[in-house]
Amino acid sequence: MFNFTFHNFTKVHFGEGQISQIQHDIPQSAKVLLVYGGGSIKNNGIYQQVTQALSAHQVVEFSGIEANPQYDTLMQGVALAKAQQVDYILAVGGGSVIDGCKFISAALKFDGQDPWDLMIQKAAVTAVVPMGVVLTLAATGSETNPATVVSRGEDKFGLFNPILRPQFAVLDPSVTLSLTDRQISNGVVDAFVHVIEQYLTYPVNAKVQDRFAEGLLLTLIEEGQKVISAEHKNDLEVRANLMFSATMALNGLIGTGVPHDWSTHMIGHELTAAYGIDHARSLSILLPSMLRERQQVKQAKLLQFAERVWNITDGTDDQKIAAAITKMEQFFKQLGAPICLSDANLDESHIPDIIQRLKGHGMTALGEDQMVTLDVVERILNRAL
Amino acid sequence: MFNFTFHNFTKVHFGEGQISQIQHDIPQSAKVLLVYGGGSIKNNGIYQQVTQALSAHQVVEFSGIEANPQYDTLMQGVALAKAQQVDYILAVGGGSVIDGCKFISAALKFDGQDPWDLMIQKAAVTAVVPMGVVLTLAATGSETNPATVVSRGEDKFGLFNPILRPQFAVLDPSVTLSLTDRQISNGVVDAFVHVIEQYLTYPVNAKVQDRFAEGLLLTLIEEGQKVISAEHKNDLEVRANLMFSATMALNGLIGTGVPHDWSTHMIGHELTAAYGIDHARSLSILLPSMLRERQQVKQAKLLQFAERVWNITDGTDDQKIAAAITKMEQFFKQLGAPICLSDANLDESHIPDIIQRLKGHGMTALGEDQMVTLDVVERILNRAL
Repeated sequence: MFNFTFHNFTKVHFGEGQISQIQHDIPQSAKVLLVYGGGSIKNNGIYQQVTQALSAHQVVEFSGIEANPQYDTLMQGVALAKAQQVDYILAVGGGSVIDGCKFISAALKFDGQDPWDLMIQKAAVTAVVPMGVVLTLAATGSETNPATVVSRGEDKFGLFNPILRPQFAVLDPSVTLSLTDRQISNGVVDAFVHVIEQYLTYPVNAKVQDRFAEGLLLTLIEEGQKVISAEHKNDLEVRANLMFSATMALNGLIGTGVPHDWSTHMIGHELTAAYGIDHARSLSILLPSMLRERQQVKQAKLLQFAERVWNITDGTDDQKIAAAITKMEQFFKQLGAPICLSDANLDESHIPDIIQRLKGHGMTALGEDQMVTLDVVERILNRAL
Repeated sequence: MFNFTFHNFTKVHFGEGQISQIQHDIPQSAKVLLVYGGGSIKNNGIYQQVTQALSAHQVVEFSGIEANPQYDTLMQGVALAKAQQVDYILAVGGGSVIDGCKFISAALKFDGQDPWDLMIQKAAVTAVVPMGVVLTLAATGSETNPATVVSRGEDKFGLFNPILRPQFAVLDPSVTLSLTDRQISNGVVDAFVHVIEQYLTYPVNAKVQDRFAEGLLLTLIEEGQKVISAEHKNDLEVRANLMFSATMALNGLIGTGVPHDWSTHMIGHELTAAYGIDHARSLSILLPSMLRERQQVKQAKLLQFAERVWNITDGTDDQKIAAAITKMEQFFKQLGAPICLSDANLDESHIPDIIQRLKGHGMTALGEDQMVTLDVVERILNRAL
């Protein structure tokens, strides 16, 4: 295990009815920027619960944050927050709204010319306006982590800084009951691949992190298979287990002291930016081919994955690994997720464009060993046709 | 799963050489009360690392905190800290030193007559002097949790308050290499039983917490069997996995949203206070009999424990459970821990005294269902002869 520092100070309120807690966690004197997306929260009761909880607070609303939040949209939020002199931000939404609010919270304290410099790391985040979260979609883990991903046109950049962590996050699984099957299954796939990117690298004898990662994968598989079935469609316990899994998948804990990969995410970001493929679907398209292409490097952990997660004990090492990847593909399919480029109407003609985009963004040596170079990406994309 | 709020804000620095981090985490202007136990830290290099890291700080030393820290000793620390006007406390030790420092940190801000009122909950903890920890023994989890246990004569009381959590904890597994086999095995048993008290109750479909608890048990068993063997005696990776497991066992995470038991701990506290039995050894003596006596209530989770932790799949339910408890006993024995009262030179003549002590402390309805009444305790103690 590598040395590490772990410091996740976000307070988590979990369970049905917990939205009311926000009135205690946001200072009474604070003027709150209430941020949400397309307005679905007005149809499912979440908006009403939030505004009721904030009835004693001054509130300014900013809505319209899109999936893969765009810089131009967020800068409108920054302008409104400045004009209204807000001193607290409440994100009510999924990963896009939360990531957008993290950018707004940092941009409001940025004293340079263009806050985009923060995203492209020309300037460092040194201060933020404090923010909290009411989570409406379990997927990205952004609600308690220090990461944000923001797009500007077709460019999509990630930023990580400990001070971006929200002060609190409300995880009420009942608010996810109004989501579509596609949103739910995307969330399961996203959380699953988050775990994989921190787990399927090379062994460093980090037994707790490995067991926790496997525990999350087993839970995501078990509950993921149920969540979109007719029998369990409104099963709040299934939603609760998935919601907690997604948060734990990327709150930093299972990633402490171990190598990380993230190459599937980096290539996936280009598929999303260029062709509008849902983030999670870009991952389910790429991951099986990534693992097959990188089988030798990841051999030891792939075997552990086969045995402990998929209970595969028969056959040669290669057979076990192949069976595990096939089972993972079947799981993605059950969730209605694509597992190859053609499932998303992409073919070999798109490969040069994807490679070019990665090159343009400096993504030329990805993975836990930086050996996922552009020629390896090309092989992965050809496998994924 | 029950509703919960989880907020563990303690910053963890993990790994060899991390003691130097404390210079950044304690404010430069702070006058530090450096607290330790019997002075073994001067023989194993820890004291030197700590004082070197604090070379730019004002430091006052207070040593001599005993196992199961005593009120009278701690009040000497309070007097010294008041006289010296310290404004930060650094605990360098295991659970006893850390628990003692938590009491000192609360007592320093107590404005009533007798800080013992905090322990017996006649007064609430409302403020503390901030504290940090350099952990020297992996066992209690106190380094990142809100609990302290303090003794006054033969009375032993626990106190829980979120503001008792340390600001930071340094977990350097190499500092545990100088411990005795008995200290090491006590730590493994203590952490193991901490997990059990939050796991072996009744199912509430909290899949993540269950999987994490099982992951910790599997790690403690795997590494616990190695740690006192000749082959792995100085194996830093084994120490690292045990140290992280012990912290995670009682940092609040696996206990969120699930029922807790703690009856083994409450009875064990009486064995320690009355007969000086090591805390961990009081637990290994009691737990097997507790589980046998409470088999019906704990049936579902005991079966899960048998299957997932001990890989027992053959036989009737009763046979599986019996086999799992026997395997747990064998594990304790391998660690050199006692598994019955006679192993600690106690017999039936002591039972009335133990019952009387529990009664005197109001411990008359323990367990996740409050059904461990004094007659149940008597049956457990008779089973444990």
